[in-house]
Amino acid sequence: MRLFYHSDIRENDSEVVLNSEDSKHIVRVLRMKANDHLYLMDGKGFRYTAKIIDANPKKCRVSIEEEEKMPQAGQGLHIGIAPTKNMDRIEFFVEKAIEIGVESITFFFSENSERKNIKLERIERIAISGMKQSRKFHLPKLSLANTFDDILSTQADQKFIAYVPTDSTEHLFSKLNSDGDTFIIVGPEGGFSENEAEKAKDNGFDWVSLGKERLRTETAGIVAVQLMNMKTFV
Amino acid sequence: MRLFYHSDIRENDSEVVLNSEDSKHIVRVLRMKANDHLYLMDGKGFRYTAKIIDANPKKCRVSIEEEEKMPQAGQGLHIGIAPTKNMDRIEFFVEKAIEIGVESITFFFSENSERKNIKLERIERIAISGMKQSRKFHLPKLSLANTFDDILSTQADQKFIAYVPTDSTEHLFSKLNSDGDTFIIVGPEGGFSENEAEKAKDNGFDWVSLGKERLRTETAGIVAVQLMNMKTFV
Repeated sequence: MRLFYHSDIRENDSEVVLNSEDSKHIVRVLRMKANDHLYLMDGKGFRYTAKIIDANPKKCRVSIEEEEKMPQAGQGLHIGIAPTKNMDRIEFFVEKAIEIGVESITFFFSENSERKNIKLERIERIAISGMKQSRKFHLPKLSLANTFDDILSTQADQKFIAYVPTDSTEHLFSKLNSDGDTFIIVGPEGGFSENEAEKAKDNGFDWVSLGKERLRTETAGIVAVQLMNMKTFV
Repeated sequence: MRLFYHSDIRENDSEVVLNSEDSKHIVRVLRMKANDHLYLMDGKGFRYTAKIIDANPKKCRVSIEEEEKMPQAGQGLHIGIAPTKNMDRIEFFVEKAIEIGVESITFFFSENSERKNIKLERIERIAISGMKQSRKFHLPKLSLANTFDDILSTQADQKFIAYVPTDSTEHLFSKLNSDGDTFIIVGPEGGFSENEAEKAKDNGFDWVSLGKERLRTETAGIVAVQLMNMKTFV
């Protein structure tokens, strides 16, 4: 069944009106009619079965017949990542992180960041589309840290920074605990500066490697999310 | 130092002539001159230090001063993957697989494949560019299986198929051995058919899960390569 996103469904809502873009798509493109069924998702874990009441191409109205709480992927897993110079790459990361499972993604800028701005609304659109396509029902919390200090003040039971000063830096997988929230930060193309890495350590972040190979930012992000999801194996 | 690809450097070659594209780039764009140094890579693990002898913009000639054998990422790790409908996605997979480390990538088509053709030359160009950008020195062996039976006849010490008929299907990570060659096959958007999965089992492929979440083909491929690289942890 077709799936549409509607962020603003409140408890006990029996009817909702879809936005103009979805309404047009439903009525004009898919040619759906009154009494046809569709799914709605709110990005907060609920999937609603809805029936079209008024197939208005500008404001399609549906009644909610059933709600179901869906399981959450990547609960308790959090990542902070410096946007790449090329936005495609960070968008790809967001899509893949959602598929593999992550609860929040925080963007930040650091000394070696080539990119110094990011449009969260655009990232959110990509995230919603990725969520729909991979049939996930929780939109990760997306945010932007104001300063590097802000990202370092994030609370979590285990905190890591992808920073590999020597060959003997331990692998993230060896350091993961199975309990509690996990947070990792991944730096920009040029990596974290020594100063930043030291500051992170002072704030309770363990230095960890993500493997023998040098990875690009977006690849390191995907690998970090995948490794955190392996907590059940540690 | 700048890095250029030249697949055809033979042992004891003391000079080589670069192709017209690289020659033009070196001479016209980078404005390099005789006696300037650059690196050459052959995709077979060697990095050569070379000096420009004749800065000809069509056939730049260089002398080889030094060769160094570079370590190989993903040795003994092999993946077979069904190309996605959208070529961008499989190209992204190839780039990421090279970064994380894999020795060979074999493409195949199966019952549910929406795409029934793939241009290996194009994939090879992407692979070479990905290899240069991520500073790897081994080009994975790229090939195309003629039939699904061909992919099943691949030899390896451990063989897996990403196929999850039930919740109790074991995770790849639990089944990995640290020894020998590993080969995994990842299906197209619609997954493998039951018939294909049974046939694979008859040919010594273990059914494995790549995690709790349903992943797209290219994501499953990236995760599979990452997991195989974790053999050192099993």
